[in-house]
Amino acid sequence: MTKIDPTPPAAATGTNGEDAFPLVLRRVAIDTYRENVAYLHRDCALYRAEGFQALSKVEVRANGRRILATLNVVDDPRIVRCNELGLSEDAFAQLDVANGQPAMLSQAEPASSIPALRRKIAGERLGRADYQAIVRDIAEHRYSKIELTAFVVATNQGELDREEVYFLTEAMAQVGERLDWRERLVVDKHCIGGIPGNRTSMLVVPIIAAHGMLCPKTSSRAITSPAGTADTMEVLASVELPIARLAEIVREHRGCLAWGGTAQLSPADDVLISVERPLSIDSPGQMVASILSKKCAAGSTHLVLDIPLGPTAKVRSMPEAQRLRKLFEFVAARMNLTIDVVITDGRQPIGNGIGPVLEARDVMRVLENDPRAPNDLRQKALRLAGRMLEFDPDVRGGDGFAIARDILDSGRALAKMDAIVRAQGARPFDHNAPQLARLDFEVRAEAGGVVTAIDNLQLARIARLAGAPKVKGAGVDLLRKLGDTVATGDVLYRVHADYVADLEFAREAARRSAGFGIGSADELPHLFVEF
Amino acid sequence: MTKIDPTPPAAATGTNGEDAFPLVLRRVAIDTYRENVAYLHRDCALYRAEGFQALSKVEVRANGRRILATLNVVDDPRIVRCNELGLSEDAFAQLDVANGQPAMLSQAEPASSIPALRRKIAGERLGRADYQAIVRDIAEHRYSKIELTAFVVATNQGELDREEVYFLTEAMAQVGERLDWRERLVVDKHCIGGIPGNRTSMLVVPIIAAHGMLCPKTSSRAITSPAGTADTMEVLASVELPIARLAEIVREHRGCLAWGGTAQLSPADDVLISVERPLSIDSPGQMVASILSKKCAAGSTHLVLDIPLGPTAKVRSMPEAQRLRKLFEFVAARMNLTIDVVITDGRQPIGNGIGPVLEARDVMRVLENDPRAPNDLRQKALRLAGRMLEFDPDVRGGDGFAIARDILDSGRALAKMDAIVRAQGARPFDHNAPQLARLDFEVRAEAGGVVTAIDNLQLARIARLAGAPKVKGAGVDLLRKLGDTVATGDVLYRVHADYVADLEFAREAARRSAGFGIGSADELPHLFVEF
Repeated sequence: MTKIDPTPPAAATGTNGEDAFPLVLRRVAIDTYRENVAYLHRDCALYRAEGFQALSKVEVRANGRRILATLNVVDDPRIVRCNELGLSEDAFAQLDVANGQPAMLSQAEPASSIPALRRKIAGERLGRADYQAIVRDIAEHRYSKIELTAFVVATNQGELDREEVYFLTEAMAQVGERLDWRERLVVDKHCIGGIPGNRTSMLVVPIIAAHGMLCPKTSSRAITSPAGTADTMEVLASVELPIARLAEIVREHRGCLAWGGTAQLSPADDVLISVERPLSIDSPGQMVASILSKKCAAGSTHLVLDIPLGPTAKVRSMPEAQRLRKLFEFVAARMNLTIDVVITDGRQPIGNGIGPVLEARDVMRVLENDPRAPNDLRQKALRLAGRMLEFDPDVRGGDGFAIARDILDSGRALAKMDAIVRAQGARPFDHNAPQLARLDFEVRAEAGGVVTAIDNLQLARIARLAGAPKVKGAGVDLLRKLGDTVATGDVLYRVHADYVADLEFAREAARRSAGFGIGSADELPHLFVEF
Repeated sequence: MTKIDPTPPAAATGTNGEDAFPLVLRRVAIDTYRENVAYLHRDCALYRAEGFQALSKVEVRANGRRILATLNVVDDPRIVRCNELGLSEDAFAQLDVANGQPAMLSQAEPASSIPALRRKIAGERLGRADYQAIVRDIAEHRYSKIELTAFVVATNQGELDREEVYFLTEAMAQVGERLDWRERLVVDKHCIGGIPGNRTSMLVVPIIAAHGMLCPKTSSRAITSPAGTADTMEVLASVELPIARLAEIVREHRGCLAWGGTAQLSPADDVLISVERPLSIDSPGQMVASILSKKCAAGSTHLVLDIPLGPTAKVRSMPEAQRLRKLFEFVAARMNLTIDVVITDGRQPIGNGIGPVLEARDVMRVLENDPRAPNDLRQKALRLAGRMLEFDPDVRGGDGFAIARDILDSGRALAKMDAIVRAQGARPFDHNAPQLARLDFEVRAEAGGVVTAIDNLQLARIARLAGAPKVKGAGVDLLRKLGDTVATGDVLYRVHADYVADLEFAREAARRSAGFGIGSADELPHLFVEF
């Protein structure tokens, strides 16, 4: 191959294409957050980048693999030279080749499911084959961010009927890896989210596993919330485990608490999330497809699903909660998944801590039967675990809660958690002296009365601004909950941060709205939920 | 300000935020194609980039200005150092500051119209104030690409009623600059697009201006087509003129043919196009709002609007064309714009050339009354000009065509074109020896018969792949048109390209489909259109 000097550009442009073919791959140390970007020098002899730019995506081939990327045009040879093809970190990792290897570039053909996408945009109902084609293209990163968004908006709200939700769920479950535990009963629980501090999985899994049922729990990391179960579990143990090691742990201990990302269970979902989250679109159809496709791909046979209801929860009215419940039940039945949907109290955060270390502290206090353990977290975990235990044919209907409580009170849940933590790779953590972030400030009551409202969204935002989940010790420590009586000047919550800028962002947000309502006892919103 | 050494990162991370505040601005020579991107080093002391990344956009303030950008995280100090804030070329140009100036970075508040956007996504009808808020946010680049796409998809097709189209048009016209020519009659013409080679504006403007009517024509460059009027006019003259100079030329010559981009007439439209084009969404509501908002902002009082109809045109049936016509008429009336909508023959490209130089050759041949001039281009331009001339109260109904023909045949149109070209800054061009791209290949008839179909989309694609419009001399030269009789092996068209790779891309596309249908004379599709 002829070596092309990056400067002057004129020399390169004058060269005929054939000599420079193919390009030399180069890792560009830019993290573009789930969007593949290819960087090409403006004077690239062969392709002259501009011809490509307006046209959707480019296709990069190397090492027998093929990825699609958005093209950025570069004028700085320190980033890429004329004969080089730069790739952002994600894109580079997907190709899995070394720097300097040859790569081919071409204009990407539009994804073959685009006509189906257009029909959906135009309001048509799509069939099973359409969803399979669309989901395959999405999982293979053949959709641009614009096309992804178009799909998410076009399938929003009333635009999907329940058969379509089933087709979408099935297609999403089929496209990735599928685990088979070769057991009759593989139980899981899932919460639709939106409630800070709600770390019941870390209590439910050791209880269920101690009972002997198989509970291979994989969880997500936070995207826009202050902590996901994987972030909090990571305070205690490693959560990024190869799938083979995970299987070993599950076989030995009957449960695990790992990050689901390595398993590639529903790759289309991971891609869709990248546009759903920024838009805060979480329509019933998309939520059901996302959750149930992952559960089926993970090999679950039985699922307890938690729908929290409250004025600042994701679901804000009982009719809405019931509609969502029916949709989960309809699709789960078609996917051969046994489901038990519970509608729970989502009026405020669960537990006291919001942020990985604070939440891990709460969880360990519950497991150790520490008197400082938050009772709402304990009660909710026991009730969920009780429902899951009743999937066991040998458990009498109604006995689940008592069995769960016995497993927790006797210390068997703690012993099981210790075993899982050791198996995954324990990290040093002392819940009596949790390593909180070094800076803090307190938010105090500006009037006396009864706490009548706690805004889930605002407290999540404050914890997030304080640095959670990236700063494990950052977040919010709630000292008051709904129904508590406070005097003027009482501390409502404490905010922890490691960095001055984070602390100030959080302080400013808390100043605009503390997220607490204080009034009289009769203003407390009542809820008639299962628990 | 404390100078922070880019390596080792640990040193920078250990520094407290306050010292490093603000960041140092740096132009990063990456062209991200209409998307502002900010680059921050992963170890940036103050902000620790990751905390920002999942959350929509960041706000950059410098020089009293403020822009929003998507954040990319960088691990290479040659791109940005720990104390620097890198900006992509577009973003850097928008701030209009020098390298090394201080800049502040914060998390962007969500655009204030997002709740209205969410209502539209949920299928609600929006009011005038909603559209004004949304369009303002879009014009100020406060929407992410994802939010933009959500707006475009949610307002697609049947989702906008005609009142809403009017609100959207009005909001788009109000948000940018507005020209006022201080004359009673300011005429313009516009085609909804999709027909290659359709360069009637370059004939209509000199004819109308020679008649003495004011015709300040601003045009677009091609985005996904092989040439826009601005690209073709640029073969003859400069088209990027400061608005003051443009006004002088128009006052002196009664017309101009300039690029509309410098005028900032409908900045929201420029932003929306960046997602509409890749999705090929061109819904009636969005098309009407886009076109009429620009015309009103440009100060036009009278408009002839061309809707080409044909099997590979944008509009493919007469009922669809009529519906679109009514929508244009409804909105134009409310915007106080006099409109004359004509439905024209869109079954094939207009003229012979597709690509800037080839089209400029055709236009000049018509103006010079050269016998080689394509007659379809001449006829269409005369008819459109005739309709525009009839906006003049002194022209009798039906006389427009004859007046236009007289202006063209007498050489007055050519003289006016020469004057405009000189005023804008002439470029050397000889239509008897146009500078075509140096490489070419021919596409020949594989069977004998009559040309019964020419695919506008495929010929545009081939011309685009050959390098048009970036390579001015590239494109397609049509030697046969609908109804022509050909023998096996006759040349249908010639493709010109400057680069081997482009030539091969175009050849491959032509091999897959030449874009010509050959059959018997009775298979020619008939159309009953005005002209």
